[in-house]
Amino acid sequence: SLLEAKGFTPDDFALSHPGGSLGKRLLLHVEDLMHTAENFPAVTPQTSVKDALLEITDKRLGMTAVLDGNKHLLGIFTDGDLRRAFEKGINVDTPIESVMTTGGKTITADALAVDAVGLMERNSITCLIVVDEQNKPVGAVHMHDLLKA
Amino acid sequence: SLLEAKGFTPDDFALSHPGGSLGKRLLLHVEDLMHTAENFPAVTPQTSVKDALLEITDKRLGMTAVLDGNKHLLGIFTDGDLRRAFEKGINVDTPIESVMTTGGKTITADALAVDAVGLMERNSITCLIVVDEQNKPVGAVHMHDLLKA
Ligand SMILES: Nc1ccn([C@@H]2O[C@H](COP(=O)(O)O[C@@]3(C(=O)O)C[C@@H](O)[C@@H](O)[C@@H]([C@H](O)CO)O3)[C@@H](O)[C@H]2O)c(=O)n1
Ligand SMILES: Nc1ccn([C@@H]2O[C@H](COP(=O)(O)O[C@@]3(C(=O)O)C[C@@H](O)[C@@H](O)[C@@H]([C@H](O)CO)O3)[C@@H](O)[C@H]2O)c(=O)n1
Repeated sequence: SLLEAKGFTPDDFALSHPGGSLGKRLLLHVEDLMHTAENFPAVTPQTSVKDALLEITDKRLGMTAVLDGNKHLLGIFTDGDLRRAFEKGINVDTPIESVMTTGGKTITADALAVDAVGLMERNSITCLIVVDEQNKPVGAVHMHDLLKA
Repeated sequence: SLLEAKGFTPDDFALSHPGGSLGKRLLLHVEDLMHTAENFPAVTPQTSVKDALLEITDKRLGMTAVLDGNKHLLGIFTDGDLRRAFEKGINVDTPIESVMTTGGKTITADALAVDAVGLMERNSITCLIVVDEQNKPVGAVHMHDLLKA
């Protein structure tokens, strides 16, 4: 990346902040910071809103991915989506597929953390689904994972 | 700040990112980036959960402050708090004071944006209430406001 070409290192970011190491992680790769396996929040399209919320709370990322039987990404459901669904009058037994956001913003595991932050900013979101070359989810990354000291 | 002492300028941050100007705002002050007046989400303790959600959606920060009659900060209610309250079985007519988080993390308007990011990271939150010397709320700032190009 240009950042690396300019000779920036994670330590430059670390040293540049009086509070310590804010930004230390920005030149790491998404795969080094993402939540995988049992820490990746995922439900099926038929999961009830009620059970999807338990998954969101359990995995602590403020959202859950919705995956089909072949583990392909169908959509995402965030705390903000819950609020909007709740305002419309939500039934806790509704399958999540009827209220999820279809698609969902993704990034690859080999991307730089700084580029994940940029993608989040451009979309005003705080979490990304991490996908492989076949567009299959392999994890998720939160803004906090990218900026934390 | 040490950042300024080291000769860092907002333009250094801007130039350091290939995608453009990520971090351009980090040396600005919170007061330059915060949401004030009619863009600051605030409700009274007696406001129903239902009406508090409308305020959150309307002001687009994913939370609302709860202020008493003298405009002092009593608490905050976020999208994450909504999820947790919803899991317990929430009544939309409940006054917000019974489900809000008492207190709420704050910062002053003269703080640097980079320090607001640090405070958010240390607390795993995405929004801060901005208060004056008398601890009265004057606005709010979201992580997105601090990092946006
Ligand atoms: N200025 C603030 C901001 C938040 N809070 C409180 O801090 C707690 C966590 O804030 P949140 O915004 O609800 O944080 C969440 C949460 O549910 O805890 C939201 C969620 O979408 C996701 O962003 C996760 C992170 O993934 C970290 O787990 O974090 C809440 O009780 C909130 O009232 C606070 O006291 N002062
Ligand atoms: N990887 C992602 C992440 C999110 N989204 C979608 O993008 C929309 C916005 O995401 P959000 O997480 O709900 O974003 C919120 C929102 O309610 O829009 C949450 C809220 O707490 C607060 O953080 C505000 C910001 O203040 C910006 O308005 O942003 C949602 O429909 C969500 O499904 C997506 O498609 N892909």
